[in-house]
Amino acid sequence: MPSIPRDALRAWFLGPRAENAALMERLITESFRDHVFWRRNYRPEDGATIREVDRRQEGYEDAIATLTQELMALLADLKRDVPFFSGRYQGHMLNEPTIASQVGYFAAMLYNPNNVTREVGPVTTRLEFEVAEQLARMIGYDPAVTWGHLTSGGTVANFEALWIARSLFYLPVAAAMAARAGAPDIDVPRPDGSRAPLSAMGLYDLLNLRGPVALDAWDALRAAVPRADWREVIDQHTLAHAGYQEYTRRLSRHWGDPLPDSVVLVAATAHYSWEKIVRALGIGAEQLAFVPVDRHCRIDPDALWERIEQLHARRAPILACISVCGTTEESAMDRLDTVLEVRARAEQELGVTFHLHADACYGGYAAAVTRRADGSHRTAAEIRGSTGIGWPSDDWVKSMVALGWFDSVTIDPHKLGYVPYPAGAMLLRDRRARDLVAVEPPYLAPAAGPSQDTSFLGQFILEGSKPGAAAAAVWLSQKVLPLDERGYGYLIERTVIGAHRLYDAIAGADLAPFRPVMLPRPDLNIVCYAMAHPSLTSLSALNRLNEGIHRQMSLGGSDQMPDYMITRTRLTHPNYDGAVPPLLPALGVGDPEQWEHGTEGLVVLRSTVMDPFLTGDAGGADHVAGYVAALKRACTTALVEISPGD
Amino acid sequence: MPSIPRDALRAWFLGPRAENAALMERLITESFRDHVFWRRNYRPEDGATIREVDRRQEGYEDAIATLTQELMALLADLKRDVPFFSGRYQGHMLNEPTIASQVGYFAAMLYNPNNVTREVGPVTTRLEFEVAEQLARMIGYDPAVTWGHLTSGGTVANFEALWIARSLFYLPVAAAMAARAGAPDIDVPRPDGSRAPLSAMGLYDLLNLRGPVALDAWDALRAAVPRADWREVIDQHTLAHAGYQEYTRRLSRHWGDPLPDSVVLVAATAHYSWEKIVRALGIGAEQLAFVPVDRHCRIDPDALWERIEQLHARRAPILACISVCGTTEESAMDRLDTVLEVRARAEQELGVTFHLHADACYGGYAAAVTRRADGSHRTAAEIRGSTGIGWPSDDWVKSMVALGWFDSVTIDPHKLGYVPYPAGAMLLRDRRARDLVAVEPPYLAPAAGPSQDTSFLGQFILEGSKPGAAAAAVWLSQKVLPLDERGYGYLIERTVIGAHRLYDAIAGADLAPFRPVMLPRPDLNIVCYAMAHPSLTSLSALNRLNEGIHRQMSLGGSDQMPDYMITRTRLTHPNYDGAVPPLLPALGVGDPEQWEHGTEGLVVLRSTVMDPFLTGDAGGADHVAGYVAALKRACTTALVEISPGD
Repeated sequence: MPSIPRDALRAWFLGPRAENAALMERLITESFRDHVFWRRNYRPEDGATIREVDRRQEGYEDAIATLTQELMALLADLKRDVPFFSGRYQGHMLNEPTIASQVGYFAAMLYNPNNVTREVGPVTTRLEFEVAEQLARMIGYDPAVTWGHLTSGGTVANFEALWIARSLFYLPVAAAMAARAGAPDIDVPRPDGSRAPLSAMGLYDLLNLRGPVALDAWDALRAAVPRADWREVIDQHTLAHAGYQEYTRRLSRHWGDPLPDSVVLVAATAHYSWEKIVRALGIGAEQLAFVPVDRHCRIDPDALWERIEQLHARRAPILACISVCGTTEESAMDRLDTVLEVRARAEQELGVTFHLHADACYGGYAAAVTRRADGSHRTAAEIRGSTGIGWPSDDWVKSMVALGWFDSVTIDPHKLGYVPYPAGAMLLRDRRARDLVAVEPPYLAPAAGPSQDTSFLGQFILEGSKPGAAAAAVWLSQKVLPLDERGYGYLIERTVIGAHRLYDAIAGADLAPFRPVMLPRPDLNIVCYAMAHPSLTSLSALNRLNEGIHRQMSLGGSDQMPDYMITRTRLTHPNYDGAVPPLLPALGVGDPEQWEHGTEGLVVLRSTVMDPFLTGDAGGADHVAGYVAALKRACTTALVEISPGD
Repeated sequence: MPSIPRDALRAWFLGPRAENAALMERLITESFRDHVFWRRNYRPEDGATIREVDRRQEGYEDAIATLTQELMALLADLKRDVPFFSGRYQGHMLNEPTIASQVGYFAAMLYNPNNVTREVGPVTTRLEFEVAEQLARMIGYDPAVTWGHLTSGGTVANFEALWIARSLFYLPVAAAMAARAGAPDIDVPRPDGSRAPLSAMGLYDLLNLRGPVALDAWDALRAAVPRADWREVIDQHTLAHAGYQEYTRRLSRHWGDPLPDSVVLVAATAHYSWEKIVRALGIGAEQLAFVPVDRHCRIDPDALWERIEQLHARRAPILACISVCGTTEESAMDRLDTVLEVRARAEQELGVTFHLHADACYGGYAAAVTRRADGSHRTAAEIRGSTGIGWPSDDWVKSMVALGWFDSVTIDPHKLGYVPYPAGAMLLRDRRARDLVAVEPPYLAPAAGPSQDTSFLGQFILEGSKPGAAAAAVWLSQKVLPLDERGYGYLIERTVIGAHRLYDAIAGADLAPFRPVMLPRPDLNIVCYAMAHPSLTSLSALNRLNEGIHRQMSLGGSDQMPDYMITRTRLTHPNYDGAVPPLLPALGVGDPEQWEHGTEGLVVLRSTVMDPFLTGDAGGADHVAGYVAALKRACTTALVEISPGD
């Protein structure tokens, strides 16, 4: 295990100048040859299929010429790709992956394992379970009762989480319908502690049972019915079986209770893919209710409470609430501890409960910052001692530790895990919920139901065939960079330090007559700000300026590679009502009506600092200073562009 | 371009004995160094970030020691993987990928491009569109009006196809609701040719409009409404917006017409993931109606017609019909041309229509067999001349050519495309339907609606971040192995020849007292059969024998690697009513009641021949003869195992 992360950091990456090229080439070659000799050692008696005589044929040589030539064309083409490895790139959530993850991916890819099931990925399915366990431990889940796996990315992981949440949400309804049809009736506790048999509960009450309670009831029901009768007696009452159209009719037939639609609450900063997900699941975009954020772009707990009260008042059940740990735009972390408190209060005061999901696709790996090598928690003061920048706050740590109490959490290794695409992860606090989306393929014996063979991953997840190589990549990377202060914790701390350094440099730079107006210091490593200018007093003029700056500092504008690459985003009303209005005076926008009545929102510039070498103590160019200089040039050019008459 | 595929075949793969190791190592190393010097050539003035002095630190050396040691552990572990590269492996749909695809994947992975959008994958998004176009051309789509992209695999591709089909299915309903709410009314043709305005049509009629007609109406509607009002005037009437619960209510409010649930017809052989998909989409497993197959395991067109008539009689609309081109279990190809005829008849005679999807995840690449180098079609006779085994039939070619008339087609490059995971593909005949699932992310200006920037793939698909490397892998492989008789066509022909050779060897072998009972000759390259024995006259005894044989010939049984590796599957009543009963006499099962009243079905053994070197003209061991010998041993052992008293 690396004992001195400070130095190890420099061994983890190939490096902006490919400084570690010799090392990586050696490991790649070694992995390749190791695979070659594995093949040769397998059944040597089989002899050579491709003989020397075959190689002397014209067609063979032609084919190799074609391959070589087309590869050269590809290599030439790839040179027009984006230099994600450089500190000059601060655009999207991309960086060079770790050496470990790339070598691990390559080594396993040669074997072509498929993690759909152990049968075709005996080694890498095990590695997948191992990395899921490591991630579970990092966020505070107990691997003995939780479950997790890798996905192609965050969207599929989030999709699965909400798919499972929906199945869980309607589970008591299914159990109650089964009970009314003659199956055993189960007595369950409501969130406020009172108990009732399922068959006697109203629809609204059934949709407000806690997840573990619903799963206990389901277990009790299935224990009371012979396995062979499950489909007939129980499963046919599920939404999965009946589908929404039929289910909607059944609900009104059984309860005659025209409840409003079930709502999915989501932080207003949530990724756009949540809209895709509720559309695809058939929940509907209209049922996605955005909860406004505060000035730190974190979900506003008062607004959340208010929304819950309003929904309760009209008896609209809440299917799930999605909190964000590391927003795409600002790297903001919702106060997850406060969100948990809001739910606890809703359970006690209103008898209302819901599935809590944390979309930690971006920020999840930052939980490593809170872990010591022995797995215990670091205190906030201890971490601040190591970062030296007054980050993180006590609240930050409290929030991160709260992740372990969420019902499901998604984390993307291909973001702050620094591994190649594709690698998302879905973690479930109570593994029993996994069975709710399980399908039995025909080639399993009818007697063997789901969950009997947990190594058949494809049974429990949306995807089927999936790269075992991705599991090997994550596994090797997490071996070299453990999920604590020695590995990922250290790496991510460095990026936060770099981001704060960049933040200070922009905020303190003399860019006159331009003025940077900063969003609050980020929770992680994304710096957002807008440039102001005395001559620009409307949001739309400011937006033109900042769009112009973005054009100068991005790849979109021209074929020429800019000095520094950033992105921009657009904060809109009402989602950002907590964040933007406080900035308007500094932006020089006198009339706050512009915000409330305009549709174009505020364009902010955005630097994602995933590069761990912006801390000021690495060799090479100082990209913080370089960035500020480039920004100044871009401001001037952009202003000229938008004021052709001047 | 390879002019002599016979010889080229031997240059396409690393080879069972890693015969082409020197070539592949050279290309890997070349790709790596090329990338290294790209980094060094980028902004040389930036200097070295990782300095020589950094490398002399203890922590740096420790980190490298850790990396090397853990990699060695991984490499050792991987040696317990499955030898997919060998002709001895005939289990699942796995083989070694082409050299081109692996080198292409590796070369691009070093750049870490993300194909969610051109901004972070400028080169590889273009390659993705190129390969989608190539695949579209291969199946007979016109790339000028179609659209396609890569997915993480077949399940996600199929999910998207049905998601789009669902959106298209309800589109006329949305347009009619918009018209009733004041939007322009559109006059459309019904499948039988008669015309009516949308607002005047009944619900059943609206759900029976042809896809292109629905899209034309949608286009007309959107053209008549200012872009800024789309959401308000049109989009809010979609299922995607409202969600199923609310939509079900609206349908009954507007039409008061309690139609039965919408049905998804699917060949009984369809992959188990279709059940996942209808569950996740909220359509419901109950709404998935399996259409029985014939003795070739192809969808039975008469049964399909009958099912359509029954559904029409009770006015149950059909959301989609899924035909399979290359079943997972048998590589059976539905008679796609006949399925098209059935739909045409339903349109004319019943006024019923539906979205036709071809799940060609496995078989799609076999369309390359039907293409000449210039893109024109080869005749069946021409292909038979090249295979020399009387395959394919005229009907086979007719069926394959019909693929181009399906509304959507899914094809997995990571199956018969011989590229590493993950790589599925979704192709849409009318690209306009893509917009139906598009989401506008907040960082696009409100004015720029979907489809304006088609390079932002994440907008139109389920997934977000996705590996550009996968596109490079498919691209390079399709450059080296073109999608015609010179490349993939030749490769797949070889596997079919190998499968037929294996079929003949098993069918003709003297395995007495055991008798092989063969399913019909496969449409592609999967050989299925069951072993019979004079002493076994019940299905359950036969199944025990064949399960026992499978245990001997698979990895599940013990830690020891068997001589040959196959899989087994279970054909069940009523899905296989066309296929299994004709085999019962040969199996020695006198009482056909066992089939109709039993639940365990018939276990068949299954060899997937993806290895192109089983044709008998390659060097090395003859794995067809070896297989038959291993089968004989396995039969004897299995019989002893199931008859402990003997």
